[in-house]
Amino acid sequence: MARMASVHRVPMRHPGDVTGIAALLDAGTLRAASIVAILGKTEGNGCVNDFTRAYAVQALSLLLARRLGTTEEDVAARVAMVMSGGTEGGLSPHFLIFAVEDTDAPATGALALGAAFTRDFAPEEIGRMAQVEATAEAVRAAMAEAGISDMADVHYVQVKCPLLTSERIAEAEGRGATVATHDTYASMGLSRGASALGVALALDEVPRAALSDGAIGQDLSLFSGRASCSAGVELTRNEVVVMGRAASWAGDLTIAHAVMRDGIDLPAIQAALRGAGLDAGAGQLADSEAGRLVALLCKAEPSTSGRIRGNRHIMNDDSDINATRHARALVGGVAAAAVGRTDLFVSGGAEHQGPDGGGPVAIIARKAG
Amino acid sequence: MARMASVHRVPMRHPGDVTGIAALLDAGTLRAASIVAILGKTEGNGCVNDFTRAYAVQALSLLLARRLGTTEEDVAARVAMVMSGGTEGGLSPHFLIFAVEDTDAPATGALALGAAFTRDFAPEEIGRMAQVEATAEAVRAAMAEAGISDMADVHYVQVKCPLLTSERIAEAEGRGATVATHDTYASMGLSRGASALGVALALDEVPRAALSDGAIGQDLSLFSGRASCSAGVELTRNEVVVMGRAASWAGDLTIAHAVMRDGIDLPAIQAALRGAGLDAGAGQLADSEAGRLVALLCKAEPSTSGRIRGNRHIMNDDSDINATRHARALVGGVAAAAVGRTDLFVSGGAEHQGPDGGGPVAIIARKAG
Amino acid sequence: MARMASVHRVPMRHPGDVTGIAALLDAGTLRAASIVAILGKTEGNGCVNDFTRAYAVQALSLLLARRLGTTEEDVAARVAMVMSGGTEGGLSPHFLIFAVEDTDAPATGALALGAAFTRDFAPEEIGRMAQVEATAEAVRAAMAEAGISDMADVHYVQVKCPLLTSERIAEAEGRGATVATHDTYASMGLSRGASALGVALALDEVPRAALSDGAIGQDLSLFSGRASCSAGVELTRNEVVVMGRAASWAGDLTIAHAVMRDGIDLPAIQAALRGAGLDAGAGQLADSEAGRLVALLCKAEPSTSGRIRGNRHIMNDDSDINATRHARALVGGVAAAAVGRTDLFVSGGAEHQGPDGGGPVAIIARKAG
Amino acid sequence: MARMASVHRVPMRHPGDVTGIAALLDAGTLRAASIVAILGKTEGNGCVNDFTRAYAVQALSLLLARRLGTTEEDVAARVAMVMSGGTEGGLSPHFLIFAVEDTDAPATGALALGAAFTRDFAPEEIGRMAQVEATAEAVRAAMAEAGISDMADVHYVQVKCPLLTSERIAEAEGRGATVATHDTYASMGLSRGASALGVALALDEVPRAALSDGAIGQDLSLFSGRASCSAGVELTRNEVVVMGRAASWAGDLTIAHAVMRDGIDLPAIQAALRGAGLDAGAGQLADSEAGRLVALLCKAEPSTSGRIRGNRHIMNDDSDINATRHARALVGGVAAAAVGRTDLFVSGGAEHQGPDGGGPVAIIARKAG
Repeated sequence: MARMASVHRVPMRHPGDVTGIAALLDAGTLRAASIVAILGKTEGNGCVNDFTRAYAVQALSLLLARRLGTTEEDVAARVAMVMSGGTEGGLSPHFLIFAVEDTDAPATGALALGAAFTRDFAPEEIGRMAQVEATAEAVRAAMAEAGISDMADVHYVQVKCPLLTSERIAEAEGRGATVATHDTYASMGLSRGASALGVALALDEVPRAALSDGAIGQDLSLFSGRASCSAGVELTRNEVVVMGRAASWAGDLTIAHAVMRDGIDLPAIQAALRGAGLDAGAGQLADSEAGRLVALLCKAEPSTSGRIRGNRHIMNDDSDINATRHARALVGGVAAAAVGRTDLFVSGGAEHQGPDGGGPVAIIARKAG
Repeated sequence: MARMASVHRVPMRHPGDVTGIAALLDAGTLRAASIVAILGKTEGNGCVNDFTRAYAVQALSLLLARRLGTTEEDVAARVAMVMSGGTEGGLSPHFLIFAVEDTDAPATGALALGAAFTRDFAPEEIGRMAQVEATAEAVRAAMAEAGISDMADVHYVQVKCPLLTSERIAEAEGRGATVATHDTYASMGLSRGASALGVALALDEVPRAALSDGAIGQDLSLFSGRASCSAGVELTRNEVVVMGRAASWAGDLTIAHAVMRDGIDLPAIQAALRGAGLDAGAGQLADSEAGRLVALLCKAEPSTSGRIRGNRHIMNDDSDINATRHARALVGGVAAAAVGRTDLFVSGGAEHQGPDGGGPVAIIARKAG
Repeated sequence: MARMASVHRVPMRHPGDVTGIAALLDAGTLRAASIVAILGKTEGNGCVNDFTRAYAVQALSLLLARRLGTTEEDVAARVAMVMSGGTEGGLSPHFLIFAVEDTDAPATGALALGAAFTRDFAPEEIGRMAQVEATAEAVRAAMAEAGISDMADVHYVQVKCPLLTSERIAEAEGRGATVATHDTYASMGLSRGASALGVALALDEVPRAALSDGAIGQDLSLFSGRASCSAGVELTRNEVVVMGRAASWAGDLTIAHAVMRDGIDLPAIQAALRGAGLDAGAGQLADSEAGRLVALLCKAEPSTSGRIRGNRHIMNDDSDINATRHARALVGGVAAAAVGRTDLFVSGGAEHQGPDGGGPVAIIARKAG
Repeated sequence: MARMASVHRVPMRHPGDVTGIAALLDAGTLRAASIVAILGKTEGNGCVNDFTRAYAVQALSLLLARRLGTTEEDVAARVAMVMSGGTEGGLSPHFLIFAVEDTDAPATGALALGAAFTRDFAPEEIGRMAQVEATAEAVRAAMAEAGISDMADVHYVQVKCPLLTSERIAEAEGRGATVATHDTYASMGLSRGASALGVALALDEVPRAALSDGAIGQDLSLFSGRASCSAGVELTRNEVVVMGRAASWAGDLTIAHAVMRDGIDLPAIQAALRGAGLDAGAGQLADSEAGRLVALLCKAEPSTSGRIRGNRHIMNDDSDINATRHARALVGGVAAAAVGRTDLFVSGGAEHQGPDGGGPVAIIARKAG
């Protein structure tokens, strides 16, 4: 008996619109109990006061709770829901539903999924080596769960991680502990960064000896080319979903990745497309190839140098539009140029996820018939 | 004796920074008296309260007035200065300086420039057929000035056009005249649209019979594939700069254009690159080719349908970021994907300049070898 | 047996936070079945893509459905929920819960509440006299329901009204009908304006003869000093809640109102405070008086003249911050100056609700002693 | 022979509009050579990429250079020009021109002005005690220049101070020095804070012993109630203008100040009004009194607690509108409530200038007649 992963890309008309998913469930195309993860690209600002993420999670939880005859809390515990705000430029709001079913079909070395969790973190562990180590361990567990033994077969690792709040900081300091930062916004970056370095450690992308509390958020030469991390206030542990290829999985999906060296690295996206068996063509996927593209997932971040290939950008100096919004718009444009579609999962906040100003890009595709 | 056009691309550190141009003048690389036009991509919001445009014009006028020993008013009368606000995504603020010199070099059919002006418009003419007709006439005059006889040799027409202000509307209505709109912001779009249709008329892109006051701003199936129009409060006539190729011009610059059918039309940009003699490669210009790229000029506009190839975009519904800012970010990303640079002249407000949601793209390049 | 109205002001930590209301229900301070209306000031942008309103309604509906053992749809049908986005400046996000109970306490002429609905509107009726007339009728019905016979006893009328969508417009035009506007955003203003004029008609604030389809949205000299209207996509009828004073109501709450002539009309706010029995003092309510203030409800709108008492404001020309956001920030500051609190219901979109640039202000207070 | 200060409040139609000042010069109402300082409230975002400030300075410098027959550099050296960006809410863009003339009129103890400069600072001194001490010394020098001997007669101290740039930091570190921060935006706050503490030291508002490098930007209980500081990239020293009252000055202008304890402290503004001889009335200045108000100058800042008198505000969590913009809108509304005008100099960035969330307010008024 093999396992088979499916991925459904579903448009949303607004952040609370789960009618597209409901229709899949109604039609029997998707079984609620088989859903393991939902990624969502919602149309908020992707920053501090982006409530489109929580609104979408509430709507999704309600829908699945009713379909499964359980509570919203139970749904949250069994399905990893990662909402990424921000559809700047031409990006199109949508959900990606990841499901796993047992199957009698033959194993094909197809797309494999595995999830794992760390223990709950104490506030003083967030953004520090304790989080790095525990994340690495969870990545290894998720790989085992997915049946992936070779690190080279891992192509995308989605991590959801906690952040520091004023309450959590106070609790830690009440015990005499110190925290990595008092700035709660900054703690999101440190938590994402530590999580990404945990992925990098598990996948041997950086040597253990190069890592330290001081390197987190500082030494941007250390990074994972496969991590995509997102911080949320609603959890205190890290939740890890590993995506890769494994011999024991069936179906016609596959996955590949590449690393964009900067925000306009079209050739890297094309390399990932080719890695997933798509013909990148002379620049933009032909319609026939585009039909086999299931998902493009990537990270966007303004370069700290204030430059792209020597030319000044204004992202870091714009007090009207947040820098991460500019970055998503830019990378969304470059990615849409490559694939001829705009429903792409371009996410911000890429600390230690790809090089400074760049980021990982993963492609999930259907194998040619 | 032939004429030779030169184009200098000069970065700016802020909208009032003309030190790069001053350095070219100091070095003798550029002669102040030879300058015929300056396009600028400044880092404001590109909308109503974007004062980076006027700030840049003031700084440019001062610089040139001092170098030419004349007044700022005189500079404004002899040099067309078109500032386009908005460097969203990764776009890089810069000036493009267009100059013309007589030369003993042999004519090569190189880049040709010609300028012309309409008469001053009465307020009731703006956004109406009177503006269309007068603009068409000015385009023909500018072609003649440039020595271009074949419409197919015109590849880019920059128009600067007036808008309605409350004062101008009151003056017209005091005389019993009616104006095209009472909404001064809307008058910018109508003026740009009428100007673009004037270019289309002159270049035989739309038949005269299809044009009417009612079609302006309404029938988006009518457009020019070579017009780029910009409205400003400081003038009451249209200023036209035609760029194309003409037998009598010398030098190693050339120009070509294409029409993007939507905001992610990478193939159209690649077609324009090839038209200008650059090898578009497998997606992004190789460094060797990129070195010969002198300028990319294009228009960006959100589709009124709210969709790009069927997928919803949120540009028209975003009350935090103006739709034109999203559109420039998107098209800037797509164009940067093609050329591997970010100092590109991507301008918003594309009424009748390319199809709905798309726009013209022109490439100025240095000929190989 | 008299009726008694209660009003609870409950802070929210985010738009989906209904824990404050849940606590009141748990404590028995508030009975779910007695709730007739909930107003909410949420922290979105208050414009087109403000999803904090729908998120709050989803959370409120869920809470009440569970407490009442019914469905969310049923809750929406029996409780008027009006969310107003935008807490610019220092405004504080909060809910106002309006409840009605029968009581054995003696009638005191206290705060009286009454609700009524119009029939569903055809698309072609929205923003036109049909909506005006039907709203006036609903106001009269709500007054009757509240037991208010004298128009002078009405101090605040909250109206929730529909808007035009592309689908509704198409449906109407398919039948050969014409609609007031094709611009769906503009339809919100017309619907609010027609609703406000309906209130004005019912309360004899404008003569019937002055009203016409053409006056709606145009003749800003016509207005109600007591209407507060809000347009939403989720309904096709007008929902009206009248607040005033009536002999048959018990309790210690009272209400009064005044009309701000512009955005900085502190004296008008002070007049409303005095009308509700509060001592406005030398400028700001003393703490003792502030403790008796239950709710301040007002409307904010930028003047179309671009001026406040002769000085230019920049609200209408700012392409970074929507004009209505500036207006709420300003009026919120003026109102906070008067009362020394920031949890105030300042709402935008004041077409025909108060004079151009001004708006109604209502005060609900607890009687002294 | 006494000295007499004059203050002209001049509206601007856009940041480069100096025609109002030119008209005063043309009319002989104002003499260019007598101008000592110009404050401007321009309509940019008041944050990093606000170019309206530099644009206004360029326009002012040009105007005065021509009228004085000198260079713009010379004008900048002799006239303190402090542009504060941000006219959120209802604030109205305007200039305040401060001039000093000798006069035969009798001394009346009227408004007195004095300016002084510190030496140029090394980068490692910025935001540290060296800047505090030097600023205190300059305040004492400016007091002497103004003929003010009693600290209690100082009511407003405008300081323009430098910031750290990447270049300045590199220069310092090249010499082995360390700087207060590597974050150039944060350096603006530290420079303003150190400058404000310098004023506080000179005016005995904080004891010398309480001050240290570590307290700057950290211990918000230390503040001046009279400092207003603004950081700019164009200078490397502090420029100080002291405003107060001195026996030897003639004319009918006077000045007073108070300290707002939070953003809605209307009573503090009223106290300052009364201090300057205006009858604050029952809340808003009567027209007759308002006519004698020459200038209101104050500082606005969001409270770091996220609360105003216990109620949550959203300024610090809003990623669409910068927190300082919310704060100016709020305080502008409160101040306009007090005075019934909107052309008020409300400035952001109030580190150590008033208590956390509050700020100084100064009133310049014409004495009753």
